[in-house]
Amino acid sequence: MLPPSPSGATTEVVAAVDVGGTRIKAALVDRSYTVLAQTTTPTPADIGADIGGAVAATVKALLESVPPGQAAQLVGCGVVVPGLVDEEDGIGIYSSNLGWRDLDIRAQVESFLGLPAVVGHDVRAGLLAESRLGAAGGHRQVLFMPLGTGIAGALLLDGSVVSGDGWAGELGHVVIDPSGPPCPCGQRGCLEVLASAGAIERIYRSQSHERLSAEDIAARAEAGESLASSVWAGAVRALGQAIVMTVTLTGVDLVLVGGGLSQSGEVLLRPLRDDVAGRLTFQRPPTIQRAGLGDRAGSLGAACLIWDSL
Amino acid sequence: MLPPSPSGATTEVVAAVDVGGTRIKAALVDRSYTVLAQTTTPTPADIGADIGGAVAATVKALLESVPPGQAAQLVGCGVVVPGLVDEEDGIGIYSSNLGWRDLDIRAQVESFLGLPAVVGHDVRAGLLAESRLGAAGGHRQVLFMPLGTGIAGALLLDGSVVSGDGWAGELGHVVIDPSGPPCPCGQRGCLEVLASAGAIERIYRSQSHERLSAEDIAARAEAGESLASSVWAGAVRALGQAIVMTVTLTGVDLVLVGGGLSQSGEVLLRPLRDDVAGRLTFQRPPTIQRAGLGDRAGSLGAACLIWDSL
Repeated sequence: MLPPSPSGATTEVVAAVDVGGTRIKAALVDRSYTVLAQTTTPTPADIGADIGGAVAATVKALLESVPPGQAAQLVGCGVVVPGLVDEEDGIGIYSSNLGWRDLDIRAQVESFLGLPAVVGHDVRAGLLAESRLGAAGGHRQVLFMPLGTGIAGALLLDGSVVSGDGWAGELGHVVIDPSGPPCPCGQRGCLEVLASAGAIERIYRSQSHERLSAEDIAARAEAGESLASSVWAGAVRALGQAIVMTVTLTGVDLVLVGGGLSQSGEVLLRPLRDDVAGRLTFQRPPTIQRAGLGDRAGSLGAACLIWDSL
Repeated sequence: MLPPSPSGATTEVVAAVDVGGTRIKAALVDRSYTVLAQTTTPTPADIGADIGGAVAATVKALLESVPPGQAAQLVGCGVVVPGLVDEEDGIGIYSSNLGWRDLDIRAQVESFLGLPAVVGHDVRAGLLAESRLGAAGGHRQVLFMPLGTGIAGALLLDGSVVSGDGWAGELGHVVIDPSGPPCPCGQRGCLEVLASAGAIERIYRSQSHERLSAEDIAARAEAGESLASSVWAGAVRALGQAIVMTVTLTGVDLVLVGGGLSQSGEVLLRPLRDDVAGRLTFQRPPTIQRAGLGDRAGSLGAACLIWDSL
């Protein structure tokens, strides 16, 4: 149990916690989604053994960082995690990054905080936040595509984020080239091994023996270096194929590109728009743009989930 | 205006009308989805010019075919059509088969019948009927895949049929092989040009100069004829790829195969299940089976839509 929040002229807030493979990003968020405090801390190695304790420590640090003039009354906690999530029962079914199976996250967090908690999926929650507070406002059919070390996906269809019993959105493992390189998932030629930041770095290194970040490769592509341009163009083609497939199957009309790779901005988006436009025939052309909330989408999504439930 | 239905000990019914490229399938359906009468008539060539009159004629014939002992009181009409449909406003936005653009189907039908009408999409309505009355009962994540001259698709995700503003479900035009044969849609290697009944017939004919139906080719494949087996296997591989892609992206756990090709039954489903099982790695394996309502799915779906609206 945390000590009770001070009473008096207080603002009700929720703690919104995004537990990632390397960092925990957290915020105190009031009902109008103003962020009163936020922190980023390393994810403890044993997070699976004590997620309640880790979240409680994060929340305590958040509360302590509220400026003295502002009194915040904590009323609940939203936690979002990667992997396979049972949102209804608050269970982390499986995360390869975080190393848990069937972890009752909600029960542990509620027991540590003594407050209601909800558990969601990081990318789906991020899309929910983008649709309420970010770049997807007013859209009802959206693909949210964070491109980083891996590639994730989430779909907003007919105005609702699709869960698929927790299984929806594995865009990174849609097979783009059945004869492509093997993917750790067991398939070959998944989008993730062709177009993630990690893939771009690996492919460039395998041909140049030079270890560069995806950001540097983007800069060299922009400057016209031939190998960088060709590696970048290959990733763009794979992303274009995946987007057109998703548009054809689901009718999304907005594609929000997020994650580290989206920081390349127009170096990525311009050729991607051209590639997609060249593939579409009868389909409704989607707008392709950067996501709006950056790496705070997940924690703001956690705030949406817990406020919705209170 | 139709003459009013006889009063007295009457059953309230709706007219459920599935307007296809070649046939209009229609039924009178009561509130418990008992079919009191049904008809199949050729689609008039000028249907786009007078859809209200065509539907009214169909409904009149249905009412006249009700056995004398049963008095049916018509209370509304559901119409489902192919192509791009604005379900909210009851507009047929575009149908290449039926040759219309921006046709106000609901207004025309309501004006002819003097009763409330709703307009839906044939395949999405068929999936709705399968989920309420057919083979998808109890499932919340379903791909419905009618395989006929063309290939259509509809998705039930988190318990709701996905509309995508009318654009969702163009599974037949997901590109399976970018270097494959051209598709009338303008892309190459669409599922429809690799695995529809029409494609199977065309591919077989191009290699044998023998004109056979897909059904006959299935029988020859089952009997071990080498060309038929190879053509059939190619179609199965394309379908398997499309199913795995859909499972990965959306999390569907039930695939219902409908349309003419599904009449091949296990000759299609057995190798298709094997192909899909061989592709999946981490994904949740879907059940793959025949749809339950056959060619009545669309009209029963039209009945669901109009009963829901009344």
